[in-house]
Amino acid sequence: MNFKEIAHLAPTCRDLGRQFEQEMAGPRSYLDFNATAPLLDEAREAMLEAMSLPGNPSSVHAEGRAARGVVDRARREVAALVGAKPSNVTFTSGASEAAATLLSPLFRNGQIPLSASRLYVSASEHPCVLAGGRFTSEGISVIPVHTDGLIDPGALRAVLTAHDRGRGAPLVAVQLANSETGVIQPIAAVSEIVRAAGGIFVVDAVQAAGRMPLNISALGPDFLILSSHKIGGPKGAGAIIALSDVLMPEPLIRGGGQEKGHRAGTEALPAIAGFGAAAKAAARLVGDARRLARLRDLAEASVRAIATDAVIHGANAPRLPNTLFFSIPGVKAETAQIAFDLAGVALSAGSACSSGKVGPSHVLTAMGFAEEWGALRLSVGYQTTEAEIEHFAAALTTVVARSGRAKKADAA
Amino acid sequence: MNFKEIAHLAPTCRDLGRQFEQEMAGPRSYLDFNATAPLLDEAREAMLEAMSLPGNPSSVHAEGRAARGVVDRARREVAALVGAKPSNVTFTSGASEAAATLLSPLFRNGQIPLSASRLYVSASEHPCVLAGGRFTSEGISVIPVHTDGLIDPGALRAVLTAHDRGRGAPLVAVQLANSETGVIQPIAAVSEIVRAAGGIFVVDAVQAAGRMPLNISALGPDFLILSSHKIGGPKGAGAIIALSDVLMPEPLIRGGGQEKGHRAGTEALPAIAGFGAAAKAAARLVGDARRLARLRDLAEASVRAIATDAVIHGANAPRLPNTLFFSIPGVKAETAQIAFDLAGVALSAGSACSSGKVGPSHVLTAMGFAEEWGALRLSVGYQTTEAEIEHFAAALTTVVARSGRAKKADAA
Repeated sequence: MNFKEIAHLAPTCRDLGRQFEQEMAGPRSYLDFNATAPLLDEAREAMLEAMSLPGNPSSVHAEGRAARGVVDRARREVAALVGAKPSNVTFTSGASEAAATLLSPLFRNGQIPLSASRLYVSASEHPCVLAGGRFTSEGISVIPVHTDGLIDPGALRAVLTAHDRGRGAPLVAVQLANSETGVIQPIAAVSEIVRAAGGIFVVDAVQAAGRMPLNISALGPDFLILSSHKIGGPKGAGAIIALSDVLMPEPLIRGGGQEKGHRAGTEALPAIAGFGAAAKAAARLVGDARRLARLRDLAEASVRAIATDAVIHGANAPRLPNTLFFSIPGVKAETAQIAFDLAGVALSAGSACSSGKVGPSHVLTAMGFAEEWGALRLSVGYQTTEAEIEHFAAALTTVVARSGRAKKADAA
Repeated sequence: MNFKEIAHLAPTCRDLGRQFEQEMAGPRSYLDFNATAPLLDEAREAMLEAMSLPGNPSSVHAEGRAARGVVDRARREVAALVGAKPSNVTFTSGASEAAATLLSPLFRNGQIPLSASRLYVSASEHPCVLAGGRFTSEGISVIPVHTDGLIDPGALRAVLTAHDRGRGAPLVAVQLANSETGVIQPIAAVSEIVRAAGGIFVVDAVQAAGRMPLNISALGPDFLILSSHKIGGPKGAGAIIALSDVLMPEPLIRGGGQEKGHRAGTEALPAIAGFGAAAKAAARLVGDARRLARLRDLAEASVRAIATDAVIHGANAPRLPNTLFFSIPGVKAETAQIAFDLAGVALSAGSACSSGKVGPSHVLTAMGFAEEWGALRLSVGYQTTEAEIEHFAAALTTVVARSGRAKKADAA
């Protein structure tokens, strides 16, 4: 890789990048599964098969029908992961497109138009949900979360009670699990509240999928959003899973008749094939969640041992088994992340350098955490080993020792 | 493949499918490159490399930056294919998403909002352009094409002269080459007309890319649309290529800061890598266009020899070197396509069975061709051999001999 290739990054990142290049020899521990999971072998194999097929799934000849078979198999596999009907799965290019499609003021209940007049989202949603899809910013209400990261069902109920049904249904979007903290929202309870208010309920299940059992009927929302690359499939596929085969948003991408008219465009065959295989694997790997939790708990214990005053965000709420989001007073997360990288450990800070913004995590802000240090996220997956957690712990010891915090302690 | 997998197809198609299954042994000649091109070896290799990278291009650690490098390389390769600046390439999930994004009533010229008050499209555009993106059907005017498939620049000029600039700019979309006929529109001339009218000009170059030299500055539109899988890359990637780095449509998919804020969502890494490699290969393979034309002309000569009254659609206009769209009186295209498939030849009829519609091609209708027989499309690519064209010719002889047309001739 060449440095001109990262010229779009902020100057600071570019300089840091140069430093990485010089020092990134040595073993790597990838502990950033919530950003993206490495491709599972099963997904790779399914992609290779799909890549060998010459046809377009919309063509009626043998080549076309073989391609169609791959899409339909993946549809069954993705449906099975969340207990849905295959016919209720609409493939998209990813979760962001799924959110942009679902967060729509216009739905159809069969042939009958149904309007959604206001969008209600929790404050800790992913940016693609906070962006509000086809709603203007004036049409969006943000529901606060508590310091533990959980939404207050009572507050949501109060807001929905005040919603003017005469202008249209309320549309509510609450994530199942947060990408930064791993905090799991009480979705079944929220579903009941939204249903009682006559609303439409969208659940971003991107980070939860494959890390906890998922059943759309048990959870109760109208729609789930899934992403392939968070469960070990390739980047470039996602899905809208509908509870019924009746209610659907107005299409965002129109043209050809693919996906029963809900989403035009030639199907992303290799990505969809890989997504299906990853979904099938995830349905099995979710049984490994206890091992993920053990690795995460090991990392969490290391953090607490190395810095007794560390704050573990969301620790008082139900969390995904694989996620640890923590702050250490005196250790600036962005700088620490770079030190970790130099030490061979890939994890993330609560900021997105590539988008040009280096700032506090909106999730931490929503949780009322205003400290200047930011937070570090470690997220493990099925390929993670105990040795990698030890690598993290050793690097953390160095990071803390070298921090201003340590110097102050020395001086004291 | 199992027949349950094609249960969504119309019953007729399903029965035909069963027949295919029983008879599809034997060599296959894939002559449907305009539907989708088989993956080029270069694209496959680039995908495999991308599939081996664990990181998210938005992550700042080494794994993230390696992934970012793949995206940026692909961006340079795609830009080079059309003589554009890499920074003016916005990756999408495909051409349909690119069209849905570009056909927008809201643009930005830098920070200044710019509204487009009406969309003008040619009658032979792809369905994703005819769908009109974010325009309502009332906001779209359709410009007719001649019987040769060409748009009338004078008619376009007259319509744009009548456009009320006070309400916003005219937005014009005309394809460079038609997917069914291969007819090439006089884009440079249309660019001048649109520019003189103060309009915004979008050119769908999906079928032209890799089959004729392409330079966005020479052609003159504000935007080009490209698709990966039509040039030998994988399905699941496309691009908006802008002439300048100032004018852009309001994003269709918002959220993360990817693609400089023009298109949110984690980049489809394997598909984008394959798209880049295919674009690089296409820039070289376009030199092979003469061979494509020779194969196409061979097929065309066979059609004329076997049925002297065959109609070659668009034969009087400039056409892509790889496309042959023809009708034979007495030979029903949809039935013939199935017979070709049984004989091992994959080509397409002017209908899309999978979308549930079996009907006349809108392109033929736009060209004033109202005959009941429909038309067959043969489209070749870089992997096509002369033997495959001979395979087609032999199958055509049988198809024509077995058609009602032949029986009538026998009876006469």
